Amino acid sequence: MNKEADFIAALRALAPHPAARGLADDCAVLDLTGTGATSGALVLTHDMMVEGVHWLPGQDMADVAWKLVATNLSDLAAKGAAPVGVLLGFTLGDADDDRRFIAGLADALAAFDVALLGGDTVAATGPRSLGLTALGRATHTPPPSRAGAQPGDGLWLTGPVGGAMLGYEALRDGTAADSTAFRRPVPRLAEGIALAPLASAMMDVSDGLLIDAARLAQASGVTLSIESGAIPFHHGVHLSRRDDAMRWGDDYELLFTLPAGVSPPVPAFRIGHAIVHSGRPLLLDGAVPHGRLGYMHG
Amino acid sequence: MNKEADFIAALRALAPHPAARGLADDCAVLDLTGTGATSGALVLTHDMMVEGVHWLPGQDMADVAWKLVATNLSDLAAKGAAPVGVLLGFTLGDADDDRRFIAGLADALAAFDVALLGGDTVAATGPRSLGLTALGRATHTPPPSRAGAQPGDGLWLTGPVGGAMLGYEALRDGTAADSTAFRRPVPRLAEGIALAPLASAMMDVSDGLLIDAARLAQASGVTLSIESGAIPFHHGVHLSRRDDAMRWGDDYELLFTLPAGVSPPVPAFRIGHAIVHSGRPLLLDGAVPHGRLGYMHG
Repeated sequence: MNKEADFIAALRALAPHPAARGLADDCAVLDLTGTGATSGALVLTHDMMVEGVHWLPGQDMADVAWKLVATNLSDLAAKGAAPVGVLLGFTLGDADDDRRFIAGLADALAAFDVALLGGDTVAATGPRSLGLTALGRATHTPPPSRAGAQPGDGLWLTGPVGGAMLGYEALRDGTAADSTAFRRPVPRLAEGIALAPLASAMMDVSDGLLIDAARLAQASGVTLSIESGAIPFHHGVHLSRRDDAMRWGDDYELLFTLPAGVSPPVPAFRIGHAIVHSGRPLLLDGAVPHGRLGYMHG
Repeated sequence: MNKEADFIAALRALAPHPAARGLADDCAVLDLTGTGATSGALVLTHDMMVEGVHWLPGQDMADVAWKLVATNLSDLAAKGAAPVGVLLGFTLGDADDDRRFIAGLADALAAFDVALLGGDTVAATGPRSLGLTALGRATHTPPPSRAGAQPGDGLWLTGPVGGAMLGYEALRDGTAADSTAFRRPVPRLAEGIALAPLASAMMDVSDGLLIDAARLAQASGVTLSIESGAIPFHHGVHLSRRDDAMRWGDDYELLFTLPAGVSPPVPAFRIGHAIVHSGRPLLLDGAVPHGRLGYMHG
């Protein structure tokens, strides 16, 4: 256990409301009809980004703004929710940076057709901290959770991993390689809406394919068996970096399970399947994967 | 204009959605019925607190947690909204501080009967930054805004100012004086719900009575004439500190206008009235108040 895990465990005890989903899902799902139904349920998420942790010091704040919006909307995508609006928590920086942030925010709001509803700005010293709350409306009842995968289900991924890793490295090292995937991820909103009625479990891949798959497996009480040869990698990922690419996050593809025989209505890759819980959440090519599975917070 | 004002002006251009209320109100008010009605509208707010800005380094994090919840709920109170839930953005600190934070959060959630729905935690260096999003359900249609005061309306305040100022000074100076008002403010939720159907304009006093009254006046396009002798002060505020107490915030009383002849259904003090806009937002005992009006962000 690390510090963040301890803290979240303590928070969980304060969050018995069913809408909180045990703080174990990408979003809160709030029924506002008062009927217990979740048709038209409100889907809510709040994610933070910190300078030097989630973005490189000196990075273009327009890209940071885009990513702040995109990553929160990716959580909505995992619930098949249609975005409604965002509230921004902003720490003021220097005026040029803040102008770039506004420009990137404008790009993202327009690209994803989402309204800026409110928020707060503060002045502070030290690394800057940003927060965004996104709310959306569920398009399917109930919205998928991480907890519904059944033995026999296929495990699918909407697109390649590793692009954000290469983009980060290009940016960090100042090379000419394309860093778009790291700077300007695109939440799979349309895919999430199309998949919500079909997926037995769904989440977005933010911390790494393997660790996120392990989380889905644990939430569902199954083991996920992944075949590395079936994983789609970004075209720039060299064979020697595939192990890293499975453990790097920030690609924001959707990871989901479908009952055997069901085909996804959107382009996706079948990378494995769920089996009866075998004592471990994850098997990679039939064995327990070595080393860290992904980005561990804290 | 300062940096924060410039930034907010730029943000405002990105927030044309009517629910955003021009980023000039305490909350966003979102109609989810699709009918344009705001009955049962969702009321949303996001406020941040930063170490060294909004709380003293070394302060008990249980009090900080309480205040983070209370100040956001105070924004809901100003809309007559009933709290539904909160999402927390948390920067990890040392383990003891974080345990105290959890304890204070538990106190506040229980005291105000509000659900913890979700959020995010991050690790970061430097002064800690916290964010909270609160959502509530409007109890009256339309929820009061800051913009409805009319000439002739009475100007009212639900309780005394200056208690938080004295509490802050006690804490800062390590004296034995009571610091509760600064550490554990109580949002006027029941008062806000009772007042929402009657108030022509309403807001909470967070940055100082005079500056917040000036904001209400500007939003409404009137001048507010305040009589200093009618302002209720915390019993500990010495005569010589009354000017300061009018300019200090953090008391979280509700400031509101009622049509002439209407009496508030909750205990409140009539501190002035609205007149036709006279070129200045505020008159204090018939004159333009001197000096700073309150806490200016940025």
